[in-house]
Amino acid sequence: MNFNQNILSLIRLFSIKKIDNLYSFKNDYSEGCHPRILEALVHANHDQQEGYGDDDYSNLARKHILSHLKCDAAIHFVSGGTQANTLVIAATLRPHESVIAAETGHINVHEAGAIEATGHKIEYAITPDGKLSPELIAPLLVKAEDHHLVKPKLVYISNSTELGTVYNLAELEALSHFCHQHNLFLFCDGARLGAALTSTQSNLTLADMARLCDVFYIGGTKNGALVGEAIVIVNEALKTDFLFHLKQRGALISKSRVLGVQFAELFRDNLYFELASHANTMSMKMAEALKQKGFDFVAPPASNQIFPILPNELIARLEKHYGFYHWKKFDDNHFSIRLVTSWATDEKMVNEFVSMLQG
Amino acid sequence: MNFNQNILSLIRLFSIKKIDNLYSFKNDYSEGCHPRILEALVHANHDQQEGYGDDDYSNLARKHILSHLKCDAAIHFVSGGTQANTLVIAATLRPHESVIAAETGHINVHEAGAIEATGHKIEYAITPDGKLSPELIAPLLVKAEDHHLVKPKLVYISNSTELGTVYNLAELEALSHFCHQHNLFLFCDGARLGAALTSTQSNLTLADMARLCDVFYIGGTKNGALVGEAIVIVNEALKTDFLFHLKQRGALISKSRVLGVQFAELFRDNLYFELASHANTMSMKMAEALKQKGFDFVAPPASNQIFPILPNELIARLEKHYGFYHWKKFDDNHFSIRLVTSWATDEKMVNEFVSMLQG
Amino acid sequence: MNFNQNILSLIRLFSIKKIDNLYSFKNDYSEGCHPRILEALVHANHDQQEGYGDDDYSNLARKHILSHLKCDAAIHFVSGGTQANTLVIAATLRPHESVIAAETGHINVHEAGAIEATGHKIEYAITPDGKLSPELIAPLLVKAEDHHLVKPKLVYISNSTELGTVYNLAELEALSHFCHQHNLFLFCDGARLGAALTSTQSNLTLADMARLCDVFYIGGTKNGALVGEAIVIVNEALKTDFLFHLKQRGALISKSRVLGVQFAELFRDNLYFELASHANTMSMKMAEALKQKGFDFVAPPASNQIFPILPNELIARLEKHYGFYHWKKFDDNHFSIRLVTSWATDEKMVNEFVSMLQG
Amino acid sequence: MNFNQNILSLIRLFSIKKIDNLYSFKNDYSEGCHPRILEALVHANHDQQEGYGDDDYSNLARKHILSHLKCDAAIHFVSGGTQANTLVIAATLRPHESVIAAETGHINVHEAGAIEATGHKIEYAITPDGKLSPELIAPLLVKAEDHHLVKPKLVYISNSTELGTVYNLAELEALSHFCHQHNLFLFCDGARLGAALTSTQSNLTLADMARLCDVFYIGGTKNGALVGEAIVIVNEALKTDFLFHLKQRGALISKSRVLGVQFAELFRDNLYFELASHANTMSMKMAEALKQKGFDFVAPPASNQIFPILPNELIARLEKHYGFYHWKKFDDNHFSIRLVTSWATDEKMVNEFVSMLQG
Repeated sequence: MNFNQNILSLIRLFSIKKIDNLYSFKNDYSEGCHPRILEALVHANHDQQEGYGDDDYSNLARKHILSHLKCDAAIHFVSGGTQANTLVIAATLRPHESVIAAETGHINVHEAGAIEATGHKIEYAITPDGKLSPELIAPLLVKAEDHHLVKPKLVYISNSTELGTVYNLAELEALSHFCHQHNLFLFCDGARLGAALTSTQSNLTLADMARLCDVFYIGGTKNGALVGEAIVIVNEALKTDFLFHLKQRGALISKSRVLGVQFAELFRDNLYFELASHANTMSMKMAEALKQKGFDFVAPPASNQIFPILPNELIARLEKHYGFYHWKKFDDNHFSIRLVTSWATDEKMVNEFVSMLQG
Repeated sequence: MNFNQNILSLIRLFSIKKIDNLYSFKNDYSEGCHPRILEALVHANHDQQEGYGDDDYSNLARKHILSHLKCDAAIHFVSGGTQANTLVIAATLRPHESVIAAETGHINVHEAGAIEATGHKIEYAITPDGKLSPELIAPLLVKAEDHHLVKPKLVYISNSTELGTVYNLAELEALSHFCHQHNLFLFCDGARLGAALTSTQSNLTLADMARLCDVFYIGGTKNGALVGEAIVIVNEALKTDFLFHLKQRGALISKSRVLGVQFAELFRDNLYFELASHANTMSMKMAEALKQKGFDFVAPPASNQIFPILPNELIARLEKHYGFYHWKKFDDNHFSIRLVTSWATDEKMVNEFVSMLQG
Repeated sequence: MNFNQNILSLIRLFSIKKIDNLYSFKNDYSEGCHPRILEALVHANHDQQEGYGDDDYSNLARKHILSHLKCDAAIHFVSGGTQANTLVIAATLRPHESVIAAETGHINVHEAGAIEATGHKIEYAITPDGKLSPELIAPLLVKAEDHHLVKPKLVYISNSTELGTVYNLAELEALSHFCHQHNLFLFCDGARLGAALTSTQSNLTLADMARLCDVFYIGGTKNGALVGEAIVIVNEALKTDFLFHLKQRGALISKSRVLGVQFAELFRDNLYFELASHANTMSMKMAEALKQKGFDFVAPPASNQIFPILPNELIARLEKHYGFYHWKKFDDNHFSIRLVTSWATDEKMVNEFVSMLQG
Repeated sequence: MNFNQNILSLIRLFSIKKIDNLYSFKNDYSEGCHPRILEALVHANHDQQEGYGDDDYSNLARKHILSHLKCDAAIHFVSGGTQANTLVIAATLRPHESVIAAETGHINVHEAGAIEATGHKIEYAITPDGKLSPELIAPLLVKAEDHHLVKPKLVYISNSTELGTVYNLAELEALSHFCHQHNLFLFCDGARLGAALTSTQSNLTLADMARLCDVFYIGGTKNGALVGEAIVIVNEALKTDFLFHLKQRGALISKSRVLGVQFAELFRDNLYFELASHANTMSMKMAEALKQKGFDFVAPPASNQIFPILPNELIARLEKHYGFYHWKKFDDNHFSIRLVTSWATDEKMVNEFVSMLQG
């Protein structure tokens, strides 16, 4: 009997339970983790390991990830995105330096002031699609030498963005070039990096990310892991003493193997990308159907988050069967909603959703 | 076929792997988690759940824990002890207020300045055994109304302490009474609360903890969980807006079910206490043997961490077979070491260690 | 011989020295202090006094100011506006709470991230004239109970604003009412409060300020003092432990008499208001002349800062004789400039400026 | 008529007023400022000047101070010692770095947690006389590479210390050498640097300070100025962007001329040193008389603060005539007191005090 196979099949036996009888398109962290992750945790469970990031599994995960990067990097595993964002920014900036973000950037709106709590101002640009560009950043640099103002030093982007859009190679190259020219660090929040890199609209690779960003992170929680994000520091200047910052911000967990095991499994082969690809395929199927019905979107669908603008009566009908967030009022008869798919999204449910649109 | 039993037995098939061929008494987070935790994660894996602490499993875990407390409390699950300490302290204090700790307190020595990074001074008392008492705290309050100094507002204790000692009921009642008299909050770091409460030298219960502390946390990571600590807020004044603090300090994880499932399982019955009790039994067996050989200790053995003072040649012999930390030089011929047992400690290894002492 | 008169006359003998041969309309802190302040410092110089805010002069100044307020208040003297803003905000907010300001608010643009350095986010509203209103604040409160966001708790206004505009009684009453309704504190930055209250467009008094704000400060540095601002705390909840915050933020100076002497003199009679009134009269004279020439303004002239939009060739002509800041490009042929008058502005220079406009 | 002389003589006409009829030896900030400072402020009063540190007087003061230093340095004027300490430390350290101080160091005990409020831990050594040495610092460096601890990066000393003791050249050279060897910055709090450098027990000069410290400040408030401290940054690495930090910490005052005028006057000739020397002469006269009566001291008298241990009945007798602080209980019959002299101390009062000892 194939032992691994056996656990996997057992795990797969459990059926999906919905929330309040609605199938949820609310987010990409509704389910647990991919069965292979659970299986890996089972396998590793009784090994005695060092703690605080120095276990064999974390080291193995580093090796796997580095093989994708094609350059040297320091890799640290943490248990959440707010942690990753907070500590990278706090470790990078001196007290008078600020971070530039899109107005819609996660650090600007959805982290309860976590960045400011470390002492730093976020300066933001208004952007239609959640993406930053040299053109949007440049005006924020004009007065950079006036000591009555904060001094911009770091550019924060998300890929995919909070509006589901993604950067392509030319865009990231332009940003990277601009940042280096202006002595700014470039940091990419990759909570949904899998979805970004496997988007049909992106020609970026992990190696490009490492070549073009000073630091970024690879999100696990929203792409098949139980919990965990992998911070990748490429710029030598940002590597120094990073372990101190990890510890100080509460992000260095004692039983670090838990994170290491998961990333080792996700990057042992192409699992990480396959899971993201599935999420994208599911959302694109929904986006295609919505387009065919003539609906518009807040931003062009590109990854596992899509934001169609729908008539209120359709929304009312859909929410009898599906869970999703209302995004923004469009006009008296329309609202935008957010639909999110994940590695765990069931294609039958997507098909059912598409059918319902026809109804 | 009993399905649960089947996974459990599969999980148990895996044999223990040592580090560098040494059986580790270095800490209580060397292994993964208790098989029942893994099993619970498997069972819950495909359920769709809300995130950020509002999932069914977290709510179930709250219910189980509350049944032990015999009072009302707000319970929040986080992924690490530094997080728990940092956020409780930062949420409790105003900028000019300080926290009082033992010199050996974890927040004072082993968190890379995490508390100060939130803006607060730690004032500490020298203590022989890691425990605080009204007598040790009182001198730090003398000048509390001088605005050139910080104003003490919170007392931090650990139970068990960083030296493995534990508080008994009378001691905690005295501390609690003193704190309330002096308008101080009492916070207990319970990273190893299981070991404390199941110590043969303690007559404290979880209900006592809730009655006598304003806030405390129940450590999971070091007592059988994969990762997780449960913060219990009893004092009404400290409950307000705590979710904001959780989010701001990076401790509110999106896939909160991961923590909820584990604590629901640990407190579904007496698993939490049984695991801690096993750890204590193992350490006491070692302590007893060390005492019989006439060795002294840094502090009286009481829980799963013991600190015998041993001749250097014995240490040299032991470390050929076991992993442990050297603590402090005692004299030219002696050093104290730290031996830590856990829920996962193998009794055969303990017996072997005891035999080796005779050698 | 009248002794006081003698020093005063000596002091007045000194003639004005310009910067680079330009008479400066750059700001209201170009000169030293009003001769009566110097005289008061001379008189008090050899008295032995307690320090840290507890000297006789600070107490006398408190008494004088309180007589204007018609209510009880705690009054503290500090040496700068950034200090006043930083410490009031840091003392008022808990870590997860934010301050709401106008986009043009001093704390948002010109304090090098001082507020964020104490851990708090500034949320701002776009406003045409630098003033806030319930209508502008309300949209920022919509999501106030979502713990993924910061929680607004304090509204910061400046009176006069950074654009020279002023609040009238009805406007401040509306703001105050709105804030209390929504459980927000109202804080007024009064670096130029003198100019605001003596504006012909304002019907506000110091007593109104105290009745309608929870805390505000009365600017001395920009209205005749050598250095100093008086923080007035009306809301009982904000008075507690404020001395600790003063000390912690470096604002409690040992030789506090220096600040006390000045405010005692400014508020012994109507000197404070007379000085501000002179500044306003001078700026209004310039504004009137500019209006008559048909020039428009960035915001309606109301106090000692005015922002006319001028043709570039006129600006070029004026800056051969006067110092002032270029504000913003208006179009290819026009720029707005900032003209600032003060207690020390020489009417002859204003007349000369007005003549030059005719030229 | 000699104009300057005239103001000076007028200023000097005013007689000293005591506090509660007691002549105060409580501190060195009881009086206003030296008449020459007042006179300089009068002279400069009507000049129009740039603000925020860029005025002619601040530049003149820089030139005068630099002539003493014999090396290049960036010099910034601020209005208080807590400000100077807070901003130098916050500007120097990265978040995970700590500052080492003596237990009695001002930043550790008397600044209401100002340093911790910027996010940094103070690690301290117990010292009998308020002075640090390589021997006292070394043990704090042992674990400097463990990222569970903070990383010491800055050594803070005071000269003179809080116990009135002073460093000599050999001691400061040893400290400086040690710091550079261990990659630590050396910062000297010079709130009472005048008293230190003019002590008969010190052979240090301002030029030595600049050669041996990375950064220090020259206290004005406690040595004849109305208000003001001059921060001197020698180490190139610490100069960068310091203006941003000044602004952010509320220490960059708009009417900076006020500070510039004073330091230009204090260092135009030897006034700064003469004033300090007077303070020392007065305290040494008292110390000598106390020694002759057989009294012991908390630390050897060396500067303008002395700490004699006196019988309670003598203290009771003295405090009918003089103001001073009780320091520490010595035994049932003795207490130490703190006597402080200043540039303004009246020799008649010192003589009277000495006579009273005989009584």
